[in-house]
Amino acid sequence: MIFILKRGVSQEQVDKFVAGWEQQGLSAFVRPGTEHTAVCLIGNTAHVDMERVVELEPIVDYARRVTEPYKLVSRTVQQENTIIRVGGAEYSPSTFPVISGPCSVESEEQVVLIAKRIKAAGARLLRGGAFKPRTSPYSFQGLGEEGLRFLLTAKQETGLPIVTEIMNQTQIPLFEDVDVVQIGARNMQNFDLLKAVGRMGKTVLLKRGLANTIEELLMSAEYLMSEGCENIILCERGIRTFETMTRNTLDLSAVVLLKQKCHLPVIVDPSHAAGIRSLVPPLSKAALAVGADGLMVETHNDPAKALCDGAQSLDLDMFDKLMDDLKTRAPLEGRTI
Amino acid sequence: MIFILKRGVSQEQVDKFVAGWEQQGLSAFVRPGTEHTAVCLIGNTAHVDMERVVELEPIVDYARRVTEPYKLVSRTVQQENTIIRVGGAEYSPSTFPVISGPCSVESEEQVVLIAKRIKAAGARLLRGGAFKPRTSPYSFQGLGEEGLRFLLTAKQETGLPIVTEIMNQTQIPLFEDVDVVQIGARNMQNFDLLKAVGRMGKTVLLKRGLANTIEELLMSAEYLMSEGCENIILCERGIRTFETMTRNTLDLSAVVLLKQKCHLPVIVDPSHAAGIRSLVPPLSKAALAVGADGLMVETHNDPAKALCDGAQSLDLDMFDKLMDDLKTRAPLEGRTI
Amino acid sequence: MIFILKRGVSQEQVDKFVAGWEQQGLSAFVRPGTEHTAVCLIGNTAHVDMERVVELEPIVDYARRVTEPYKLVSRTVQQENTIIRVGGAEYSPSTFPVISGPCSVESEEQVVLIAKRIKAAGARLLRGGAFKPRTSPYSFQGLGEEGLRFLLTAKQETGLPIVTEIMNQTQIPLFEDVDVVQIGARNMQNFDLLKAVGRMGKTVLLKRGLANTIEELLMSAEYLMSEGCENIILCERGIRTFETMTRNTLDLSAVVLLKQKCHLPVIVDPSHAAGIRSLVPPLSKAALAVGADGLMVETHNDPAKALCDGAQSLDLDMFDKLMDDLKTRAPLEGRTI
Amino acid sequence: MIFILKRGVSQEQVDKFVAGWEQQGLSAFVRPGTEHTAVCLIGNTAHVDMERVVELEPIVDYARRVTEPYKLVSRTVQQENTIIRVGGAEYSPSTFPVISGPCSVESEEQVVLIAKRIKAAGARLLRGGAFKPRTSPYSFQGLGEEGLRFLLTAKQETGLPIVTEIMNQTQIPLFEDVDVVQIGARNMQNFDLLKAVGRMGKTVLLKRGLANTIEELLMSAEYLMSEGCENIILCERGIRTFETMTRNTLDLSAVVLLKQKCHLPVIVDPSHAAGIRSLVPPLSKAALAVGADGLMVETHNDPAKALCDGAQSLDLDMFDKLMDDLKTRAPLEGRTI
Repeated sequence: MIFILKRGVSQEQVDKFVAGWEQQGLSAFVRPGTEHTAVCLIGNTAHVDMERVVELEPIVDYARRVTEPYKLVSRTVQQENTIIRVGGAEYSPSTFPVISGPCSVESEEQVVLIAKRIKAAGARLLRGGAFKPRTSPYSFQGLGEEGLRFLLTAKQETGLPIVTEIMNQTQIPLFEDVDVVQIGARNMQNFDLLKAVGRMGKTVLLKRGLANTIEELLMSAEYLMSEGCENIILCERGIRTFETMTRNTLDLSAVVLLKQKCHLPVIVDPSHAAGIRSLVPPLSKAALAVGADGLMVETHNDPAKALCDGAQSLDLDMFDKLMDDLKTRAPLEGRTI
Repeated sequence: MIFILKRGVSQEQVDKFVAGWEQQGLSAFVRPGTEHTAVCLIGNTAHVDMERVVELEPIVDYARRVTEPYKLVSRTVQQENTIIRVGGAEYSPSTFPVISGPCSVESEEQVVLIAKRIKAAGARLLRGGAFKPRTSPYSFQGLGEEGLRFLLTAKQETGLPIVTEIMNQTQIPLFEDVDVVQIGARNMQNFDLLKAVGRMGKTVLLKRGLANTIEELLMSAEYLMSEGCENIILCERGIRTFETMTRNTLDLSAVVLLKQKCHLPVIVDPSHAAGIRSLVPPLSKAALAVGADGLMVETHNDPAKALCDGAQSLDLDMFDKLMDDLKTRAPLEGRTI
Repeated sequence: MIFILKRGVSQEQVDKFVAGWEQQGLSAFVRPGTEHTAVCLIGNTAHVDMERVVELEPIVDYARRVTEPYKLVSRTVQQENTIIRVGGAEYSPSTFPVISGPCSVESEEQVVLIAKRIKAAGARLLRGGAFKPRTSPYSFQGLGEEGLRFLLTAKQETGLPIVTEIMNQTQIPLFEDVDVVQIGARNMQNFDLLKAVGRMGKTVLLKRGLANTIEELLMSAEYLMSEGCENIILCERGIRTFETMTRNTLDLSAVVLLKQKCHLPVIVDPSHAAGIRSLVPPLSKAALAVGADGLMVETHNDPAKALCDGAQSLDLDMFDKLMDDLKTRAPLEGRTI
Repeated sequence: MIFILKRGVSQEQVDKFVAGWEQQGLSAFVRPGTEHTAVCLIGNTAHVDMERVVELEPIVDYARRVTEPYKLVSRTVQQENTIIRVGGAEYSPSTFPVISGPCSVESEEQVVLIAKRIKAAGARLLRGGAFKPRTSPYSFQGLGEEGLRFLLTAKQETGLPIVTEIMNQTQIPLFEDVDVVQIGARNMQNFDLLKAVGRMGKTVLLKRGLANTIEELLMSAEYLMSEGCENIILCERGIRTFETMTRNTLDLSAVVLLKQKCHLPVIVDPSHAAGIRSLVPPLSKAALAVGADGLMVETHNDPAKALCDGAQSLDLDMFDKLMDDLKTRAPLEGRTI
């Protein structure tokens, strides 16, 4: 159940209103908007008489029962787009920040070199894997803490905020200086991890699981937000289908639907979706055209020698070319790269 | 097995070369290119000594064994894009013709009205269903022959070539004046229909089946081409996945892969893929950006009253707006609408 | 809308009742049961006042609006199982007839040899492909009419009724002596073929399409039945999923659900589902245990040399062993082989 | 790379052999069998000259390069079935233990009552959720530690060993008295959890993820085994497909393939696969018939009031009936319940 409060209501009035509900055993989340504040009740609200509340509570403009299972992330609760700022990057309807970097951090030299090149090309954030989820226990599992240190060095040298994946909640202390904490596709429904990361006070990049529906992605974002996390970036990265010629099937319709139903920014990762280098530039352009709020693209200084996912990484010259193509097209979508 | 012949080889030499293979029980298809002619052998070629052929046949430049199961549609056999002209419309790397019209033809007035409006907006071909495949025997099955007549009237009034679906080979005589014969998604592997339509001498629009792989689509095009059909337009229209929020999942990666592997034009039908009107414009822009050679978009003069698929049809004002958006973006992809 | 008539209603009364509806532009199908006759109205019944009908029509016991999109095939309309007899074979809750034979008929000797062996092992019907749907135009497409003649010879020599696939409606005259006309998975939604085959007066074996839902299968059976076809055998044969280790994923839950919702017999084809010989016997036993009404299993006298689908065919000794295993287990399910 | 050692080789000889490989930077796992010991080399073995090893090492019978990505769980490495004993229950080719209990533990009385009834019916292990993964943050998340205590009480009162799900590695200390630690479908590729649980020295029940392939399931079992876990029970519980009438599609072919490729026991969970009570008994019988080594079936004393997944739980009388059906059929498969 959602209450939209009248304009000009004081903080004190809101606090009193919330306290009233909490005495009845319900949770009440306050969502201030630019014009109106919304209050979102969670718990068994079957006994609440909506019309009486509007009548009796002078601060309430109108009340509405919500049937979608997600609430805090819903556009019904917050109509304005959530704007997220990380370092110099901004996620908003008028920007299109590109995250780039290697699948896994391999050495300090490598990640610094890549960071400089992608920054020059116009990327706004640096990504790199330090802890890598791998299907086989015998595959390279990432450099771990050392990898995180190399990323921080690259951040110092370039000023680019960093994005990297957390694999379990015991790693939280290591992520203190990370700008954006990524929850990978395989952990999208690791609910305990969502709760713990939701309490970190960080910007979170939440990737869609490869067999998860759009609604399940929104419910996982709801887990984060119900723990107090405000800055969540959703990421479409391909779903598992019967088609075997691509690694996964990129679902660009999901971008449009997520933005209709939810106020959070939505980006696209064409590299993991396709698993094939030559598909990354056309899918990136399609992501911009379909209305995505940004991209995450894998790059490598020498893809043929990459320790992980080389086949889908762009080399740095290809990345320059892609950024040029995006810069030409972004103004038509009302965005700047 | 494919032979690329030397430049300047005479027709007589080619005929003799082909006749030699046919005496050995193999079929040989000749594919003339702008510079080189390719000859494609079909049948059990295991016993053919490729190197000896190159040595002994002075007209052969080089020979190659093909491992892809498709041959005639393959870029290996024909590197140049197939250019298709239908009425005033042209499918080529520098054009982006848009097909539009109602899901099913409902009356002469309706289809003429829509045809005039979409032509004014820049559409190049008119589509409309006369014979409709419907899941239920109790749903409206189309106007049949009368529907075809109405389409022809609309063609006369506007000059737009017409595209309409054939459902079985007994209907072939009725399609004499149809410009582009559509094979629907459910008939993509109706092999007897493919063979019969392949012999019609028409341009064919072949839609991907909702559970068919990219390779299977190419094999079905191969059926058409092996019967002599040269002008085939492939159409991605969404595949069936676990996601239920859209009717199907549009697979734009398939567009890129089809164009890499095959010389035929590839278009996108966002209306049937999404099943939701508001997704059609963004997916259309994405199709242009990803490299498609055209679009097929459902329109209706009054979607709320459509006898079929109203929820996914654009009304005529929305179509005007979409065409404007496409015209602004097409030059960046080197195309004209 | 369905009316259940009172016991002892005369044919004349029923005819008058039906005629009344037809005057109102509705179709009325009569479905006699062992105790009660059901009348099923098709068309726009929104204006029909159900309660008034029960009140005014003395022969009506009760009336019910149906929300399922299928009617004639529904258990709501006919609670008793449809019993189907073909030659000496019977489909019923107390039998478990096994259909067997080669994927494609290769010669008269082959099919007669296989027919004799499978009959000795306890099979009740002989299957064999004469017209074969193949993904590639260059694959063996079956012996055609000659193949049908070989099947008929085998029927004469063994007395086994024959099952074989029709690929398009122009072949109908050739199927005069065929006992069970099979509609293959790829043609499950070839609606024109369904209508034409529904009028043949034959028993039809309808296979589930590899990307079709349970409800769509029931709708295709409804197409057949609405043309007058009473004897329809449904067949689960695997659906297309992301798993690549089997050709398709056999969906045994579908067998249970189909039997709950529909009065027609449901059989299982484990050979096409799995595509791997060693999976056929365990999946056959599972089909019996789950409640299927029969099986269709591919056999070949020399699988290694089969012209089609050899990898999934049992050799004749394996088939003997499987039939022994089924005969031991059938009594526990209240069935005889 | 796998070495099969000669019969009668001493422990000392094995240790020396292993040490030799470890000096070369490779890991060597020793897998003693009833007749032969296998040694499995992991790491980059490209430089190892297989033939020379057989020649030079007198204890080696033969050597083989493995192409499957899994090794320790493979039947190539261990041909004999792994027999697992937990309390009085045994997983082996001649047994068919049934695990049962409520989706989530709701109270001490409830779980003790259910435990007594299922034990009387023939169940061998008790399951119950204490920590519950739920799609929504607002759904009941289980009783947590209190739930574990109630399970232990039920174990004391009935002697049934208990199976319950762990959701993250910080919970490991709480699972000291749990007999079988379950890794749920959503955690099948939570690789850090697999590693931590693999070191617990417990029997592990590993469920297939709803979008994971058979090979990925084997790779996750390989994670457990490479950490020293010997007793792993694999569980097929349905995969996500386009079909919406069931919650998931139970893939019984996977049971057969897993047992062909791997030496671990494989059980089936029909409750979560189907999500519909009436499908559980027929699918259970099918699981026995297809060759599964056991079952996991949800039961509840009052399904209509269950806090979680009531729609798929059997009531206790239905469970009695199912166990009777299984007991009649198990001898035909050479098993005892």
